[in-house]
Amino acid sequence: MHRVSAPVLRKFTVAVFEAAGTPRDIATTVAKMLVKANLCGVDSHGVVRIAEYIGEMDKGVYKPRERPKIVRQKGATGIVDGRWGFGQPAGIMTMELAIEKARTHGVGAAVAIRTNHIGRVADYTELAVEKKMIGFGLTNGGVAVAPWQGKTGLLGTNPISYGVPAGKEDPIIMDYATSVSSYGKVQIYASKGRELPLGWVQDKNGHPTNDSDFLSKGGTMLTFGGYKGYGLSLVVESLGGALTGEGVSDEFVGQNGTFMQAIDVEHFIPFAKFAKDVDKLVRKMRQSAPAAGYTEVLVPGDPERRAFAERSKNGIELNDAIWESTMKVAKRFGVEEPRTLSA
Amino acid sequence: MHRVSAPVLRKFTVAVFEAAGTPRDIATTVAKMLVKANLCGVDSHGVVRIAEYIGEMDKGVYKPRERPKIVRQKGATGIVDGRWGFGQPAGIMTMELAIEKARTHGVGAAVAIRTNHIGRVADYTELAVEKKMIGFGLTNGGVAVAPWQGKTGLLGTNPISYGVPAGKEDPIIMDYATSVSSYGKVQIYASKGRELPLGWVQDKNGHPTNDSDFLSKGGTMLTFGGYKGYGLSLVVESLGGALTGEGVSDEFVGQNGTFMQAIDVEHFIPFAKFAKDVDKLVRKMRQSAPAAGYTEVLVPGDPERRAFAERSKNGIELNDAIWESTMKVAKRFGVEEPRTLSA
Repeated sequence: MHRVSAPVLRKFTVAVFEAAGTPRDIATTVAKMLVKANLCGVDSHGVVRIAEYIGEMDKGVYKPRERPKIVRQKGATGIVDGRWGFGQPAGIMTMELAIEKARTHGVGAAVAIRTNHIGRVADYTELAVEKKMIGFGLTNGGVAVAPWQGKTGLLGTNPISYGVPAGKEDPIIMDYATSVSSYGKVQIYASKGRELPLGWVQDKNGHPTNDSDFLSKGGTMLTFGGYKGYGLSLVVESLGGALTGEGVSDEFVGQNGTFMQAIDVEHFIPFAKFAKDVDKLVRKMRQSAPAAGYTEVLVPGDPERRAFAERSKNGIELNDAIWESTMKVAKRFGVEEPRTLSA
Repeated sequence: MHRVSAPVLRKFTVAVFEAAGTPRDIATTVAKMLVKANLCGVDSHGVVRIAEYIGEMDKGVYKPRERPKIVRQKGATGIVDGRWGFGQPAGIMTMELAIEKARTHGVGAAVAIRTNHIGRVADYTELAVEKKMIGFGLTNGGVAVAPWQGKTGLLGTNPISYGVPAGKEDPIIMDYATSVSSYGKVQIYASKGRELPLGWVQDKNGHPTNDSDFLSKGGTMLTFGGYKGYGLSLVVESLGGALTGEGVSDEFVGQNGTFMQAIDVEHFIPFAKFAKDVDKLVRKMRQSAPAAGYTEVLVPGDPERRAFAERSKNGIELNDAIWESTMKVAKRFGVEEPRTLSA
């Protein structure tokens, strides 16, 4: 284990991307979002991606100097072209466009085309929440998940996120894969050689399995809540794949077909009244009695907020596998190892 | 069992509501939607509601002569006042307003306030689909469902629906409760004195139970997919309860706080291209190999379409309990029993 403080890890990440040919402002944005994912406890979307992104640059998939561009605006909608640069600036531009449209029209929606990995979808719905708007976002990509009752990998883990602003309480920030588990979580089990909980994945015949090496053996991931998560996953394909024109299921050509939406609360009701009700909702949940076996009731966003507070204070732990692969990349670009907090 | 043809059941339903003081056009709309629910196999939202609605009229909750009214329009948004009349006309007006706004702005959203039971949410998202738009709708109400890790009933079954238009294939019509089971399904088990499948509900302490009489004993329903369905349920509360101003959780004053949205595909991409991709998506799912234990892969909307075809041909079966309670109401208003297809 290697423990690094967030500011040090950010600076290191900027240095690597910059050394690899990324303009400093883009490198800074991407570093900020990767390290934030680590801070939030979502290590699958953290600095583990540095080596991956660099690998994609080597293949020419990532064009680090390209900047996203708004290519169409019509009414309350818009289209952002990611131009195969880093996905994060494209994601930000897409949600900011949706927010701008929502400010004018009450609701706004935008899609991103030709976009690489955008990271955690919650990072974008939080942008709407900061503007006192309701944010909604999703992105498709990959085919590791089987349809309900099926056994073929035809769907991405297809995450969705909702952000709802509150007043005095914390906002509701929901962000999850429409598969039972995210791919990142599965990878963490696999990297430790651990068995998966039953119900997450199935083998190539569609039988339940706890084999974390299921993918290489033709197995697939399952949608959460059976046909219910499956339905949502098809919505993600429709908005992220068909509405963007990037293609659906295994014909999807991009990395992350992205749809973002913002709703301006003030178009419906004074924000203060809305916020008071969301505050009540959050408090009612948190103050309610836990069920047998639990000690508390949380609202979506609480686990990430706790991790953020803890890791901001104590630093971010990186396991040996992530450390080695990342330092290998750093060495290649002549970037010094980040100072660790403990040996 | 009593089997009745859909047209006969519709005519009967119109007659009862009309005799109870409902203008014919409203009675016709409500009858059409209740019988359609039966045709689609969703008996919990079918003519079983006749006796319930009449009971609400008796209490003065339903004002059968009131018509919904658009009370605010701003940009791509709008507010419909249901004026405590039947919920169905208010629901239709709300989605039609969202569709109209989407035609102009590309995306449109509307809420309904002071609204009674709107029925199946899919009936409204289908209105958007008919106009070649993507429809989204939800409605909150009731407090039978516990938050994730909690044991107190603080949330409604809070259904959501998405409708995605296709080209030559059937549209994707997703419509489900954010609880594991709808309340209607639970009631059906209870009416037969049958045990519930484990995982649907919990007892008053938050222990799993299969007791279909759990509610009267202080038990609660569970959200689907644990924290994932819980997150969506809070979104339904936020849009249906806070954005409408009707209140959240157990402080919600209405019956169905309603949010409807439409997205005009043409604002993003030519509809023909979109439809071709959705067609592909639907075919890829249906043509994929079933997992062990299954014989086919469906898309959302298929079960309802099959029931619709079968029941349109063979009639709608009503069990004795529903028949008795409905005929009691009919008798009170001097409406003749509908002709049955089999004894």
